[in-house]
Amino acid sequence: MILQLAIDRVTIEEAIDIIKETREYVDIIEIGTSLIKDYGMDSVRKIKENFPDIRILADIKTIDEAEYEFRAVYEAGADIATVMGASAISSIEICDRVAKEYKKDYMIDLLEVDDQRLSSLIKFKDAIFGVHLPADKNGIGLENLIQESILSLKGIERISVAGGVSVNTMPLLEKSGIEIAIVGGAITKAQDRKLAAKDFSRMKEVRK
Amino acid sequence: MILQLAIDRVTIEEAIDIIKETREYVDIIEIGTSLIKDYGMDSVRKIKENFPDIRILADIKTIDEAEYEFRAVYEAGADIATVMGASAISSIEICDRVAKEYKKDYMIDLLEVDDQRLSSLIKFKDAIFGVHLPADKNGIGLENLIQESILSLKGIERISVAGGVSVNTMPLLEKSGIEIAIVGGAITKAQDRKLAAKDFSRMKEVRK
Repeated sequence: MILQLAIDRVTIEEAIDIIKETREYVDIIEIGTSLIKDYGMDSVRKIKENFPDIRILADIKTIDEAEYEFRAVYEAGADIATVMGASAISSIEICDRVAKEYKKDYMIDLLEVDDQRLSSLIKFKDAIFGVHLPADKNGIGLENLIQESILSLKGIERISVAGGVSVNTMPLLEKSGIEIAIVGGAITKAQDRKLAAKDFSRMKEVRK
Repeated sequence: MILQLAIDRVTIEEAIDIIKETREYVDIIEIGTSLIKDYGMDSVRKIKENFPDIRILADIKTIDEAEYEFRAVYEAGADIATVMGASAISSIEICDRVAKEYKKDYMIDLLEVDDQRLSSLIKFKDAIFGVHLPADKNGIGLENLIQESILSLKGIERISVAGGVSVNTMPLLEKSGIEIAIVGGAITKAQDRKLAAKDFSRMKEVRK
């Protein structure tokens, strides 16, 4: 399992400071939706310029205008872009095509995706499927959500989980075959961010 | 019926030029999702600073983090913010509350909203309901979409329609009781934008 650090609700400069402190323990940096909506593609460009060797996920949450948004965000330097699972299937097909053209990855965000909708998403074999507990629910119910999602995601290779992930839930994620654990405030708002990132990083592998 | 001009895929400076040319015929300026994702809240702030008297819709397409996004966009100067109908109901409830706190409007974007989901949105009596043909479908099927939507939106007061609206479809919208007709490229990409805006503006009222 790898660790993705989600950075939200800070300036680009603060984001750069957070990355400097935590980079040694983090595998993917997520430029959160709030940074994109606050600062636009500059958030992606500037962070990629400062950290060309770190893998960047830009949480652009595309739901329409897939071609324009995915090209823009890959051109700005993102390695992974996100599209809502609630988008039209034709839009997600465009994301899949553009991602392959750029030889980059994309994540389908399963927020508010029911089982019926999920069954029409299964065909996107190369996508990372993002199990996402809405921030508005404050992380309540994460374990149930993971277990339900794993049942319905049977056969899907690449799964990430976001929303309220703690050091304590990391072993459950690892045992469940999750590819990417996404952590935000538990690291970015910690007194000692470096130590917090290290604590999460240690939990990436299940201890025998 | 009133006319909303959607501005997309240009720089903020180009947007300002477009607004100068067309403002006399346009009731609401829409700062398109592409401007927000390209330039962030600066797009809203700068356009509102230049045109403090024009009503601004910021097409932020909130789908999570509703409180943060709606506050940010209203603070930046938007008069109307948008939320996806595919969001969690709890997120839309937050949008409704924040809109009322700011005494501003919000639009629920009905992209990929089916009848079952729509029935759970009807309770948002003060929202504008945005019938939206995905840009990825190039405006095909607008008339059917309008007629279907009007059937299923019975009882809803405030409806806007976007995606491929032409001068020729304006009378259908007006007759159907649509509050806001949203036009983009048909004005912004016209040889003579002022003339195009005038042509649409003339069609706001059904001729007897």
